[in-house]
Amino acid sequence: MARIVHVDDLDDPRLADYLHLRDVQMRLAHESEHGIYLAEGEKVVRRAHEAGHEAASFLMAPRWLDGLRDVLDASDAPCFVMSEKDVERVTGFHVHRGALSAVRRPAPADVDDVLAAARRVVVLEDLVDHTNVGAIFRVAAALGFDAVLLSPRCADPFYRRAVKVAMGAVFSVPHARVDDWYGTPALLSRHGFTTYAMTLADDAVSLEDVGDVPERLALVVGSEGPGLTEHWQRSSDVRVTIPMAAGIDSLNVATSVAVACWHLR
Amino acid sequence: MARIVHVDDLDDPRLADYLHLRDVQMRLAHESEHGIYLAEGEKVVRRAHEAGHEAASFLMAPRWLDGLRDVLDASDAPCFVMSEKDVERVTGFHVHRGALSAVRRPAPADVDDVLAAARRVVVLEDLVDHTNVGAIFRVAAALGFDAVLLSPRCADPFYRRAVKVAMGAVFSVPHARVDDWYGTPALLSRHGFTTYAMTLADDAVSLEDVGDVPERLALVVGSEGPGLTEHWQRSSDVRVTIPMAAGIDSLNVATSVAVACWHLR
Repeated sequence: MARIVHVDDLDDPRLADYLHLRDVQMRLAHESEHGIYLAEGEKVVRRAHEAGHEAASFLMAPRWLDGLRDVLDASDAPCFVMSEKDVERVTGFHVHRGALSAVRRPAPADVDDVLAAARRVVVLEDLVDHTNVGAIFRVAAALGFDAVLLSPRCADPFYRRAVKVAMGAVFSVPHARVDDWYGTPALLSRHGFTTYAMTLADDAVSLEDVGDVPERLALVVGSEGPGLTEHWQRSSDVRVTIPMAAGIDSLNVATSVAVACWHLR
Repeated sequence: MARIVHVDDLDDPRLADYLHLRDVQMRLAHESEHGIYLAEGEKVVRRAHEAGHEAASFLMAPRWLDGLRDVLDASDAPCFVMSEKDVERVTGFHVHRGALSAVRRPAPADVDDVLAAARRVVVLEDLVDHTNVGAIFRVAAALGFDAVLLSPRCADPFYRRAVKVAMGAVFSVPHARVDDWYGTPALLSRHGFTTYAMTLADDAVSLEDVGDVPERLALVVGSEGPGLTEHWQRSSDVRVTIPMAAGIDSLNVATSVAVACWHLR
């Protein structure tokens, strides 16, 4: 059972995992050094637990204790309890739905293992926005894609904001980060995947005209600003575009993935 | 030509339109009282201008002046110039892509006029998240929907965050706010629209099975948490659901609209 620890001192060193929640750089440095991620909100804290992830600690105002009683009962980690106001002071942040948990990051999955078990993969090249990464996990989970591959520089799916937007789908959808990004198109081929590269290029195939969906499909999308790199556009089996109304330059990347996942389901 | 006004005093009363950018309640009160909205970022400032909206003023660091020269040349409004740091101090906010403009809100459109001119309408009931409202305008514009109807309590499409996420689509997609929300299903019928209500209900028609798309279509979505009210579910012609993988409870509302707009295009 989690030890309930009432904390009055905002500078208590045991709260180190909960500082600077608005500062992405500091968080990523702290989290990678300490091997944790942050689950925010009662539902996400619960889903992290249900996914078998181990809490390092919890932080919440008293009124959230009851709702999470079973999760706390199943854990040996300390549960720091403060007023809502103090939680906000520590985190620098108004925490929606009160509860937080610092959770031990699971060991990274092996790329070959993930690909061997998957039939529909979303491949993310250098996305910078954690909201987009989280949204894509949620879409993938809902629309029957069963894995996500991340480029070396793609935003972290275990960053608080991504975890929250994904509603826990980063726990359930297998994913792996690739080291050799240049060699990834060939890797996907070796695993039997046909790669569809999403692009705005005029000469790409319209999503409406792609025809029969291959047995194993990798849907590849590029960074929010520049889109997919030339290397990937050249190395993919099919370049696909979503036809849009005149004068509209693009859809958000997560929206594009949703439309494509739906169409190719 | 806009008057360039260098401002050193952070308390200069002429900056009143640019204060408290992070405080939604204060902004909405200020903006409705003063009849302005806030365009953020070079591209959005330009699109507001291209849409024929009149700037009340601009605020930017010197390095953005050149890129917006033609927009400034076409305006009589003052352009307040400060260092990036001071802009951040005034707004309480790191302004991405530097330039801001307080823009006069256009007169609200008449609901009957908007409906008479439209064939595909998205109807939003009580959405609370400005990001979702902006994303839905962007999706509607890209995927061939030609109007948006808003419930009385739906989040403001001219709120800064909505304008930004929409990438200016709130300027180009005709929209109107309805007074008599209870009577809106009947209003849509009178205008010849068939209403599709998006729901998670088990007994709704799968989006895959809706068949031929009606000549005039209103796609209705409800609030982020509770979804569409009973009244709308009962009053709509068809209740439609997006089939999802087992164990996934829902898609984000903007994502759902994207999938439905694509499927029904």
